[in-house]
Amino acid sequence: MQTIQDSPLYPIMHPDRVAVIGASNRMENMGTAILNNILSFDFKGEIFPVHPTLEQVLGLQAYLNVSEIPVVPDLAIIVVPTRIVLQVFRECGQKGIRHAIIISGGFREAGEDGKHREQELLRIAQEYGIRFIGPNCIGVVNPNHRFNTTMFHYNASMEGFIGMVSQSGSFITQMFMHLEKFGLGFSQGFSVGNQTDMDIASCLEYLGVCERTRVIGLYIEGLTRPDEFIRIAREVSKKTPIVAMYVGGTEAGSRAGGSHTGALSGSDAIYQGVFRQCGIVRADSIEELFDFCWALGTQPLMNGNRVAVFTHSGGPGATAADAADRAGLKLPPLSAKTKEKLRDLVPQTGSLNNPIDLTFTRNFYDMMINIPRVLLEDNGLDGILAYFLIFVDNFKRLLGKVDSPLIPIEEYEEYVIELCVHFAKLVKSRNKPLLGSSFQARSEPFIKKLEDLGIPILPSPERSARAMGALYDYSMMRKALTD
Amino acid sequence: MQTIQDSPLYPIMHPDRVAVIGASNRMENMGTAILNNILSFDFKGEIFPVHPTLEQVLGLQAYLNVSEIPVVPDLAIIVVPTRIVLQVFRECGQKGIRHAIIISGGFREAGEDGKHREQELLRIAQEYGIRFIGPNCIGVVNPNHRFNTTMFHYNASMEGFIGMVSQSGSFITQMFMHLEKFGLGFSQGFSVGNQTDMDIASCLEYLGVCERTRVIGLYIEGLTRPDEFIRIAREVSKKTPIVAMYVGGTEAGSRAGGSHTGALSGSDAIYQGVFRQCGIVRADSIEELFDFCWALGTQPLMNGNRVAVFTHSGGPGATAADAADRAGLKLPPLSAKTKEKLRDLVPQTGSLNNPIDLTFTRNFYDMMINIPRVLLEDNGLDGILAYFLIFVDNFKRLLGKVDSPLIPIEEYEEYVIELCVHFAKLVKSRNKPLLGSSFQARSEPFIKKLEDLGIPILPSPERSARAMGALYDYSMMRKALTD
Repeated sequence: MQTIQDSPLYPIMHPDRVAVIGASNRMENMGTAILNNILSFDFKGEIFPVHPTLEQVLGLQAYLNVSEIPVVPDLAIIVVPTRIVLQVFRECGQKGIRHAIIISGGFREAGEDGKHREQELLRIAQEYGIRFIGPNCIGVVNPNHRFNTTMFHYNASMEGFIGMVSQSGSFITQMFMHLEKFGLGFSQGFSVGNQTDMDIASCLEYLGVCERTRVIGLYIEGLTRPDEFIRIAREVSKKTPIVAMYVGGTEAGSRAGGSHTGALSGSDAIYQGVFRQCGIVRADSIEELFDFCWALGTQPLMNGNRVAVFTHSGGPGATAADAADRAGLKLPPLSAKTKEKLRDLVPQTGSLNNPIDLTFTRNFYDMMINIPRVLLEDNGLDGILAYFLIFVDNFKRLLGKVDSPLIPIEEYEEYVIELCVHFAKLVKSRNKPLLGSSFQARSEPFIKKLEDLGIPILPSPERSARAMGALYDYSMMRKALTD
Repeated sequence: MQTIQDSPLYPIMHPDRVAVIGASNRMENMGTAILNNILSFDFKGEIFPVHPTLEQVLGLQAYLNVSEIPVVPDLAIIVVPTRIVLQVFRECGQKGIRHAIIISGGFREAGEDGKHREQELLRIAQEYGIRFIGPNCIGVVNPNHRFNTTMFHYNASMEGFIGMVSQSGSFITQMFMHLEKFGLGFSQGFSVGNQTDMDIASCLEYLGVCERTRVIGLYIEGLTRPDEFIRIAREVSKKTPIVAMYVGGTEAGSRAGGSHTGALSGSDAIYQGVFRQCGIVRADSIEELFDFCWALGTQPLMNGNRVAVFTHSGGPGATAADAADRAGLKLPPLSAKTKEKLRDLVPQTGSLNNPIDLTFTRNFYDMMINIPRVLLEDNGLDGILAYFLIFVDNFKRLLGKVDSPLIPIEEYEEYVIELCVHFAKLVKSRNKPLLGSSFQARSEPFIKKLEDLGIPILPSPERSARAMGALYDYSMMRKALTD
């Protein structure tokens, strides 16, 4: 596959004419929420709601059945009761619709009857040449096409670089709010459900050639075509990092996956081996998956595992150092030359060991520019972990009580933002990964600025250290795959 | 020690007359921020700023030196340049001040000269009978006494149940904002710095008899009196859970701790053994430390490791199951009797395996009351993990576009809050731990309500499962200690 246009997933992610079968004017209906989200995302194509009795659905003209739609839609979204899915699906085929998303559940995950129903789905698809996602999924989101078939609202400003394929709809939709906390978003996101036709491997291959996708996240309960997955993943991860969470390796996780998507899981050791063989970084939780995606999707590769921790708070420095060590990284002592360059920039109460600890600083220019520059230029370091804290609020609370500050607070805030811009430029100009962390969040303007300029600010020093460990692992696996 | 009044830490945490030595009217001065935070927390006692030239500091009358203060303060906070700390400390002793917090750094952590200075501090303390915290710390916070000597503002509504002792000031002060995200707070918090006089063991003993403290968090770079620590911790953890993070067990963490507080660390295995022997739960990160404190400070003990995962989203159910398994918990199949009771409460597309997965629900009363009641009453289960998601926003976006909803949205919001109240009552009425999780945050009124009623809502299913694992570990260790 050369471009996403080569994939049957392309029309599913970029439709112009969409039939929505199962929406109504009742809010407790899942199809209604889905149609409303398609509408509220400002989708540019045509929408054809299908409903057996209503003339209008959410203000759009509705059709009694698929055959009455005046054109041939290029995609059908099916969210009807299980018992009529097959009939509706066949009608779609008869109409000439060649792509579908089947949201309805009640198939393989629901026992023997369900298995038969799922086989029948596949038979109908083959008869009419339909390619589909699902059943038992939540659909897809493609912010660039303003297309969101899920039950959750997608914030349009969050078009992102993470391509996501998930057997859980929740880890597409409920992540909208998680990603928004960090200013991140999906490039394209697939909830594949039971993977009856298009599976994780198909979506992975598609995302591997997607130009908007800089990193791929996978949530896996069980692979359907392991050989194909391995073949594709080894190819994709040569240029796009892949991060995977796998839950089928424990007894409880395997049973849960079986009930959820009818997945057949394999032993943890086997999956671990597959991931390593494919250059896939494994995450232990969904939070970690997105932490790793953030780092791998924004930072250059590492040539080695030597990192510097830069902080002005001892505790965060020590926890970062401890976590980095556990994640397979090394904190070498700084070279004499680097120490010399830093000596006048770090207060006497600070430390020039690694971590480099300011303990306290009044000079933000040193903190944001001069010190990072020295560290970025040190060839004995392969990456930088930087802990951030800026006291704007503290300063604000002192206003009016103290002698005039050195600079007025508004200027100070502007100055901090300017420093962030310079800092990000400095980092981008060197080919060395830098991951930030802070217990301050995106509600702080300086954190938002750094994040929007492509500097990940993880929510804790330990999480930034583990993300750097993931970046190192990927760098080494990719080297092995491409050498 | 029977009560906190028996400890020399009591006057440090509950002073009436405080000398603040080193504040000025310049905002870039650390002492100024500290004095301002004492003032802005509405401290009820008297404050005596000491400054060599100023007549007023932040609007308060200032004194040229300690001897000029018209009364004998019961506490001195010293935040002056390193070179005059000893002189100021001696003046405090001469004045009759018997308790101090020494914030200034430049002691053991700063090399040989610093070591001598630190010995001299101790000598002066012994000469005058002064008990002190620090040096090289950030001081203390005691919300109940409205007393905060740190550089960060403490939100007064966050008086909490977590007693914290930390060698890092950051893990007191910068946690204010972290805890606020979850409606949590400190009962009392100590930044012990170099532990020259009062150390982690002293503070642990104090918190062990503090009635406002339901759980104790420790951030450790190295223990100064390990035998005493073990004796105290074994006693305290018989009734108050202790959660510890230790960073000195890796080469990088040990070096960082040495530079930070001059701590002498020990091998990871030794500390691991000490923790187990003392019934202390170990956390791998600061986030995890507070997750565990939340669970252990609010939930009853577990009799065994059998848990049910309750969810309406398959993915979060499967990740919780997988994480629970890895944390040493078991997800048994539900009994026939429990399945029978649940059959009509769970939709056909859902699952009665463990996880109990609704997949989708329209009946919030079943979700919040009827199903949890069945699980809480099942004697084959020792704890419940519940994943929460409530779609108020989705419903709001549909308003005005659909036929009248079953209930108006304001009533629906009220109804959800009422259900939360009933749910929390139900949980409290059974002696069984329940931990919630959600990717929705405290900005959602229903999450805030649950949290304020004592139901922890961890930020991810995996984190709730690991916190339940910590609760199980503590339950078993405590049983072994008290049997």
